[in-house]
Amino acid sequence: MTARVHCALVHHPVRDRAGHPIASAITNVDVHDLARSARTFGLAGYWVVSPIAAQRLLVERILDHWAHGAGARRVPERTRALSICAPIESVDAAIAAITEREGSAPALWVTAAKAPPGKTLTSWADGRALLASSARPVLILFGTAHGLHSTLMDRADVVLAPIQPGSDYNHLSVRAAAAITFDRLLGDR
Amino acid sequence: MTARVHCALVHHPVRDRAGHPIASAITNVDVHDLARSARTFGLAGYWVVSPIAAQRLLVERILDHWAHGAGARRVPERTRALSICAPIESVDAAIAAITEREGSAPALWVTAAKAPPGKTLTSWADGRALLASSARPVLILFGTAHGLHSTLMDRADVVLAPIQPGSDYNHLSVRAAAAITFDRLLGDR
Repeated sequence: MTARVHCALVHHPVRDRAGHPIASAITNVDVHDLARSARTFGLAGYWVVSPIAAQRLLVERILDHWAHGAGARRVPERTRALSICAPIESVDAAIAAITEREGSAPALWVTAAKAPPGKTLTSWADGRALLASSARPVLILFGTAHGLHSTLMDRADVVLAPIQPGSDYNHLSVRAAAAITFDRLLGDR
Repeated sequence: MTARVHCALVHHPVRDRAGHPIASAITNVDVHDLARSARTFGLAGYWVVSPIAAQRLLVERILDHWAHGAGARRVPERTRALSICAPIESVDAAIAAITEREGSAPALWVTAAKAPPGKTLTSWADGRALLASSARPVLILFGTAHGLHSTLMDRADVVLAPIQPGSDYNHLSVRAAAAITFDRLLGDR
């Protein structure tokens, strides 16, 4: 058995520079990049989480352009990537949608540039083995702005080790962090 | 000895959809994302290659904003990432600059979504071992648009295997491909 893996790009609740909860703005390039990476590594779904209806409408318009509009005729590969993407109002709504689609509730996985205090970290090798041997679906959360708010971090079933803790610099874009996460957990080797 | 590694994001000569050589436009998010990934994985330099002076000026303005302008005061981490970035007019000019800085000419490494015909592919494990054991500097080329033109591909000393050849979909953004490349070759394990 291999777990079916979903990911969510979270725009609320995430942290501002001071750690306070905010709703961040959806970025066009994030919608595309994470969809392309998720599709390449065989993820089952990519959820763009925002509580702001106008922001979800923006995602709908992007998806419509690439599913039915000029984009679909010009760059059909993009249609295939974005077909696994959907906007949704909250992480809990994503969990409910995945539970309905997959038949059981997903485990919540997170990774962060700095390990949250008091949490047991899972190595990437162990995470990879866990996905390969488990039937339970998984939802990997990625935080925008300055990362997932602690209320989400506290709910994680699996906290993956930071990607590059030995570096003197660790500020990957969420696009780069997601690509590396998928590759480490699911990539061809 | 470990090789000092540079990367270049190439905007000319790259391929359009039909394979013809073009000069592509520089994208702000590419300048930032590759700088952040390159800095996180310890690269020595990140060159943004365009023969168009107005495009290189755009990069200079971005760099100036983050080195000396409001950006530097607001997000100092970004300053550190972009300090390894420079625009340059051609791959050959990048090779010359690296040769002067490192004391010897760099080997040219490339990767591509589709392996170029007639080239011997290097596995990622072998590439990683080669970097760790060699003192010769390396310049990894990434192509924008539809990838590096064959005139550059033909000059490569090392052609890395495609990132995810077993996938039924392989259209990573250059931002994602670069992040995965650095992680596979230089990442903490």
